[in-house]
Amino acid sequence: MKFNIALLAGDGIGPEVIDQAVKVSDAVAKKFGHEITWKPALTGAAAIDAVGEPYPDETHAVCAASDAVLFGAIGHPKYDNDPSAPVRPEQGLLKMRKKLGLFANVRPTFTFPSLLDKSPLKKERIEGTDLVFLRELTGGIYFGEKGRRDNGETAYDNCVYTREEVQRLAKKGFELAMTRRKKLCCVDKANVLETSRLWRETVQAMEKDYPEVEVSYEFVDAVAMRLVQWPNSYDVLITENLFGDILTDEASVISGSMGLMPSASMGADIALFEPIHGSYPQATGQNIANPMATVLSAAMMFETAFNLPEEGKAIRDAVNKALAEGVVTEDLAEGGKAYGTKEVGDWLAANI
Amino acid sequence: MKFNIALLAGDGIGPEVIDQAVKVSDAVAKKFGHEITWKPALTGAAAIDAVGEPYPDETHAVCAASDAVLFGAIGHPKYDNDPSAPVRPEQGLLKMRKKLGLFANVRPTFTFPSLLDKSPLKKERIEGTDLVFLRELTGGIYFGEKGRRDNGETAYDNCVYTREEVQRLAKKGFELAMTRRKKLCCVDKANVLETSRLWRETVQAMEKDYPEVEVSYEFVDAVAMRLVQWPNSYDVLITENLFGDILTDEASVISGSMGLMPSASMGADIALFEPIHGSYPQATGQNIANPMATVLSAAMMFETAFNLPEEGKAIRDAVNKALAEGVVTEDLAEGGKAYGTKEVGDWLAANI
Ligand SMILES: CC(C)[C@H](C(=O)O)[C@@H](O)C(=O)O
Ligand SMILES: CC(C)[C@H](C(=O)O)[C@@H](O)C(=O)O
Repeated sequence: MKFNIALLAGDGIGPEVIDQAVKVSDAVAKKFGHEITWKPALTGAAAIDAVGEPYPDETHAVCAASDAVLFGAIGHPKYDNDPSAPVRPEQGLLKMRKKLGLFANVRPTFTFPSLLDKSPLKKERIEGTDLVFLRELTGGIYFGEKGRRDNGETAYDNCVYTREEVQRLAKKGFELAMTRRKKLCCVDKANVLETSRLWRETVQAMEKDYPEVEVSYEFVDAVAMRLVQWPNSYDVLITENLFGDILTDEASVISGSMGLMPSASMGADIALFEPIHGSYPQATGQNIANPMATVLSAAMMFETAFNLPEEGKAIRDAVNKALAEGVVTEDLAEGGKAYGTKEVGDWLAANI
Repeated sequence: MKFNIALLAGDGIGPEVIDQAVKVSDAVAKKFGHEITWKPALTGAAAIDAVGEPYPDETHAVCAASDAVLFGAIGHPKYDNDPSAPVRPEQGLLKMRKKLGLFANVRPTFTFPSLLDKSPLKKERIEGTDLVFLRELTGGIYFGEKGRRDNGETAYDNCVYTREEVQRLAKKGFELAMTRRKKLCCVDKANVLETSRLWRETVQAMEKDYPEVEVSYEFVDAVAMRLVQWPNSYDVLITENLFGDILTDEASVISGSMGLMPSASMGADIALFEPIHGSYPQATGQNIANPMATVLSAAMMFETAFNLPEEGKAIRDAVNKALAEGVVTEDLAEGGKAYGTKEVGDWLAANI
């Protein structure tokens, strides 16, 4: 098969980790007889510096014309702590999600037995954890009307959801649960918010179409607790944009494997794949960043966007082998030899 | 001194744990020569059942005329999972906060050395944790305009903050930091929300009035992570209503001492004290609920509302002694003897 893949390296360590994912994907393509054409495009602070815009129209055109998007990370310290900066890298991210229609952010949290000790949680709490968040990504308070009144003394943000937006996200949640342990948790704040009541009633009405799925409804504050107490009690969780932002990040640190967690953002026509870690500006250009989350994001791309599970498995197997043999960057080296970003990428590509 | 204290026992285990706090407070009053008049009033599901309203006007009148409010817990399963119930116990809570002007929720998370093993976190992560959240409690998305349009197909919730609301909360935060380790973290989502940008710019402008306080600004998703990774890196955290709801609950489970955590909600004229745990309907009437969080809330009341630190310390000392001697309810008994709710209360009162 032939694929065009938009390549958005972004800021900080983004370009370095993306390079490794390209190398590994090319090795997979070679082995399985596919042909990948990479289409690099600018995004984030890098794009602001170059053309004054974090998600330029040319970048959107490249993405929209591709079969999938592989994304590094964005964010640069020069834009932090300046609430009034006219353009910020994050705006590019939000614009990209909206314009590509990436309404479902898929965020798995799972454990690697060899990394359990890295978790801040006790082993017996985290063992066996294998959950997935589906976060709604193009609605809610992120995209509602916002602004100031009373001469800037009053600020407001509007959170809005339509039943249709909830349905399309929940549908993905039910379907995903059917391929897994058939448990779905709807996370909301229906005791306070009207949007949450819409979420809850919409999901309740869909239950009858998936009689095998066991559905629970939990308040966002309760989930924030239970994720730390009994993360392995969850299977699939669905939630709105802001709650998902907070809870997926909380979930990411419990496994001890944050540097390895991939993610996908899916729309009707296209999907984007990216590591969940940030742009780690401090590590930029030092060849120390862990490329495995980006490489595993490429695995998700083969599996989800191209429906090629074998290809994805080849990548996962190589990563597991690297972990078992200690071919890891310094964050996982535990006093043993630390490999460089590039060396880990080379090793993975050679072991496909 | 003479005090009138409104006593809102509420639902579930509320009445049982409140009884113990009354007993202990009376012992303190006796020892230090104060006179407490308790003013019981209805709230929560108990009030709905009795008068159709979770925070009746008579209850408000009692609270408004008192020197402080001691509160148990509210919530009853018959009102759960019914997003369209016409009156819900939680509405009483929100109405009470608003009508009493309780704008600052003070939520400490600290550790008891003897309970460190109960934490889901590894000991080295949690040791030494001693942080306080100040959660804004009468503004934000909880109280903004909310509703439906398009025949119920679209729901909305409005989040609104004024500079003044941010200032009065932040002022309490700076002042509290000055009495502690002088570190203040402003938690927001200023990269996305306009209300968060108002929070951040308002706090930034106040920094010059507290030159000794070291202020940091962190995004809510980053704090959700760091609370699990390095909770002992925080001192005082200030945040808006909804973020505070999620993060204070997350913080409450990391210490291993959730059943012991007190809280205060402060207004300009009156303050309310309550355990952070809920109404645990399953445990109602079984004499097994741990009363220590409510008893420690009474300690906070003496210290904060009445400015009587000695009286507060007498209560804390009694609780520490009970923990050291194993006079605890079954949640803390660890295979040893479990005392009843009432027996723990009696023991604490006798040891004042
Ligand atoms: C950078 C920010 C706008 C973004 C978000 O909140 O969605 C990030 O935290 C994420 O989760 O991808
Ligand atoms: C019951 C609910 C309305 C309430 C809140 O969200 O404020 C509770 O979770 C709390 O934190 O006191």
